[in-house]
Formats: sequence, structure tokens, C-alpha cells
Amino acid sequence: MNKQQLIEQIQKKKSFLCVGLDTDINKIPQDLLSLEDPVFEFNKQIITKTAEFAVAYKPNTAFYEVYGAKGWQSLERTIQYIKVNYPEIFIIADAKRGDIGNTSANYAKAFFNSLKADALTVAPYMGKDSVEPFLGFEDKWVILLALTSNAGSKDFQYLNTGDRLLYQQVLQTATTWASSEKMMFVVGATHPEELGEIRKLLPDYFFLVPGVGAQGGDLQTVAKYGLNKDCGLLVNSSRGIIYASNKFDFADRAAEEAQKLQRQMSALL
Amino acid sequence: MNKQQLIEQIQKKKSFLCVGLDTDINKIPQDLLSLEDPVFEFNKQIITKTAEFAVAYKPNTAFYEVYGAKGWQSLERTIQYIKVNYPEIFIIADAKRGDIGNTSANYAKAFFNSLKADALTVAPYMGKDSVEPFLGFEDKWVILLALTSNAGSKDFQYLNTGDRLLYQQVLQTATTWASSEKMMFVVGATHPEELGEIRKLLPDYFFLVPGVGAQGGDLQTVAKYGLNKDCGLLVNSSRGIIYASNKFDFADRAAEEAQKLQRQMSALL
Repeated sequence: MNKQQLIEQIQKKKSFLCVGLDTDINKIPQDLLSLEDPVFEFNKQIITKTAEFAVAYKPNTAFYEVYGAKGWQSLERTIQYIKVNYPEIFIIADAKRGDIGNTSANYAKAFFNSLKADALTVAPYMGKDSVEPFLGFEDKWVILLALTSNAGSKDFQYLNTGDRLLYQQVLQTATTWASSEKMMFVVGATHPEELGEIRKLLPDYFFLVPGVGAQGGDLQTVAKYGLNKDCGLLVNSSRGIIYASNKFDFADRAAEEAQKLQRQMSALL
Repeated sequence: MNKQQLIEQIQKKKSFLCVGLDTDINKIPQDLLSLEDPVFEFNKQIITKTAEFAVAYKPNTAFYEVYGAKGWQSLERTIQYIKVNYPEIFIIADAKRGDIGNTSANYAKAFFNSLKADALTVAPYMGKDSVEPFLGFEDKWVILLALTSNAGSKDFQYLNTGDRLLYQQVLQTATTWASSEKMMFVVGATHPEELGEIRKLLPDYFFLVPGVGAQGGDLQTVAKYGLNKDCGLLVNSSRGIIYASNKFDFADRAAEEAQKLQRQMSALL
């Protein structure tokens, strides 16, 4: 998917909501466990009910890998289901990969060609040749970790590297690798003021913003500091939506939570 | 596996060789492709012939994920095969993971409980709470990226963060998270002088050293700068061993290459 198509979807749905599919078998309704692929079944129902309010889905690959080959199959089915039924929706494989060149090239094939995700989250520590192999696919995106939402973001990301902090240096360097048509950045909702500074430096790039809800970030504040003329934000919520209920009504309750966020977003756009 | 068991294996085999199982279906003998699981079949033969010369195997997960659920199954089978037939051998899942706490906890379960790897490579960028969930498993190891072997290591890892460079700061901070009984560090063979400095700072930790062979690093130099009283090194070779031949003799040729390295290591210990 290209940038213009993503922007059009945001305008049409009046939403910049990304639903995180961090599906944990211990948290889903117990009734589903007798089915052949409970994780896919859960995702399918969540997707069917929330798709009108969301512009992106973000399965975090760890929640699938924990079930081995079977989990990987649930992930394949989930992405396939979205592609077939909601082709306008942007799919982010939240995998935080990054390795030496020939290895990153394999990850790129795994996520872009086999799984058919539109975007992949990538870790910056190993530098340019670890990121570049992900940039050679048409209408596919790298979403690079810049300033993450967790407490550990303080350990290295804020180190002073002379002219700027490490996360600022990552942003500065990475924007020389790819334009805003191919690259986005992860900027956690838990750092709203930094989000404002980053927006000033990078007026055109999209930011994927995790950390709203369970992790304590606030949507209004994120919008205030992060919106640009195209919107420029994908705000992710996982647990607050998909685990709104663990009973038979889970998909309807997820839809309600997604709609609540979509309405707030609509007012902010 | 605990540190003492690893050291004993090194002493017994007079080897600190780690064989990288970066198995690429385009590079293996074509005869294998008619089998049900060519990747596992290739690995099995490589392992059978090289196990007496190696103390560790390191499948890089990207080479398995590229084949989706099927690839994940090849990885499971490979690790299972080593565990059953060569229980003394140390298994490193080279996955370079790292995510917010509850997600890292899922990766830890995937790699330590389901796949039964002894160690996992982890990326440091997200800080302490992204690494900690991997440290709570008995006799399981985190191998943290410090100074990687690729050209892109220059982009961020050498940034001056005041008192020290970023990779030095990562080492300094991470040693406060775990002792040399639970944590190792990746230090690329392509940076021999830095390896010497790091050894002085961290006399007791094991280092996983990629980059010998195809990437240009040299075993004698690595040993000169990196050995400690326990050995303290796992030197990885992937392509130089597993692709020594792409004909019917591939496993025998791999064994020859592994033995060559083992003999050199024996003289260095």
C-alpha cells in the first residue's frame, strides 16, 4: 500500500486507529479453545467487528511464535483473512527484526512476500545494511524503532551522543535512508513532548504510536503533538480493544471500544 | 545448560566452534529437494557429521521464517534432533528479539520452553525491561548484541555517549542486569581491537563471535584478543562450513571444514 492510499483510507474512515492483535490464548474466551485454530478464530471475529473503525491491524509476532509452527499458521491465516476481506487495510507485522544484510533479506521475504504484510517494525541498532534489505519492495514499509513506549526506552535511547540524543540521531540518520513514502517511525505515546519535537523535525513522516491505553498514553495529547497535514499518525491500541470482554460478547465489546476511539479520532482530524 | 557444562564441553572437544545453521534452500544440494523437509534433512546430515568438532549450533531464525509455518517446523525438528542426539551441545536461537516486557515474555516462552534453545540473541535498543523477561529461565542464556560484525555497526554502535561509545555503554549497563552465568555478548570478529578492550573490561563473560570466514574476520586474531581463562569464546562459522560443497558430499565437506577450524582452535586453547 502506498502513502496516498493510506491517507485516503484515514480520511474516508475518519480514523487513524491501529488495532494490535496481541492474541494470547490465556485471555480469549474459553469457548473458542475447542476450535481447530482458536487464535485465528478470535482474530477473525475481532477483525470482522472492528474493521470499519480501524485503518490498520498490527499482529505482534511474539504472540504467534509462542505456539511454534501452529502459531505461525494462525498468523498467516489472520493476514490472509484481512487481505481478502478488507484489502484497503494496512497490515503491520510487529516483529522488530534487524540482522546482517543477507539475513535481513530473508526476513523481508518472510514478511513481505510470504506473509504479505504491508509493513514491518525494524530495530535500528545494527545500522544501515540491516535496514536496507527491507526497503527494496514496492509499496512495502519499514517502521523503525525510534523512541519506544516502555520504561527501558530510558536506558539507551536518551543517551547524549553529542549534538543530539540517541533516538534523535537514529531519526536523523534513518531519514537519509528512506523517504516518508517508505519509512515510518515508532514513537511511544508515553513521550508526548518528544513526539512534538520529532514532529517538528520530521513534518512528513508517519509515526506508529503504541502505548495509548494499558501503557498510560493519552490520545488527545498524542494528537496535539503528533498530527500533521495528512494526519501522519497510526495510534495503536491492543489490550484495551481485544480484551474488552473475555466472554461470548468479546467481538462486540471490542467493536465498542474501537468505535469510541474512532469517534475521538474523528473529532481530532 | 550452565556455564560450567559449556566450559567442560569446550575442554573435552578442544573446540569453541559454533556452526551457524543459516540453511537456504537455494544453496543446498538439489537432490534433497524431493524430500518432505529438505531443510531439516540438510541440517540433520550437517549436524551428524560436524557434532564432534562443534560445541554449539546457531540456527538463524530468519532462514526458517522465510518458509512460514513449514520453516518453523524445520527449526523445531532441527533443535529436537540436536537435543536428542547431542544433549551436550549448546543451542543458540539467533533471533535478535527484543520488545516491551509482556511481549518479550512471549518470545522467551517461544524460544526457551517450546523450541528448547539454550540461548537467544537479543537486541539492546529497548533497554532493561525488554531483556529481563529472558533472564528468568534456569540454565537459559541471553546473548546481547553489543558490537556486531556488519558494516552498519558503525552507524550507531560507535556513537560517543560521553564517557564511552554506545556499544561500551550497552556492555556496561547490561552487566548490571545479569552475571556471566546468564548473559553473553555478541562481538563481531571484524572488530578485533575492540574485542581486546572488551575482554579487559569483562574478563568473565562469554562472547559469541560471528564474522569469521565469509565476513572477513580471522580466527587467530580473535583468539589472541578474546580468549580468557575459561576460553570465553564461541566463534561462529556458517557459510564456510555448511556450503563447503553443494553436491552429494556436502556433509563430509562440512565436516572437513569444521575439523580444520577445530584443529586450529585446539592449538589456541
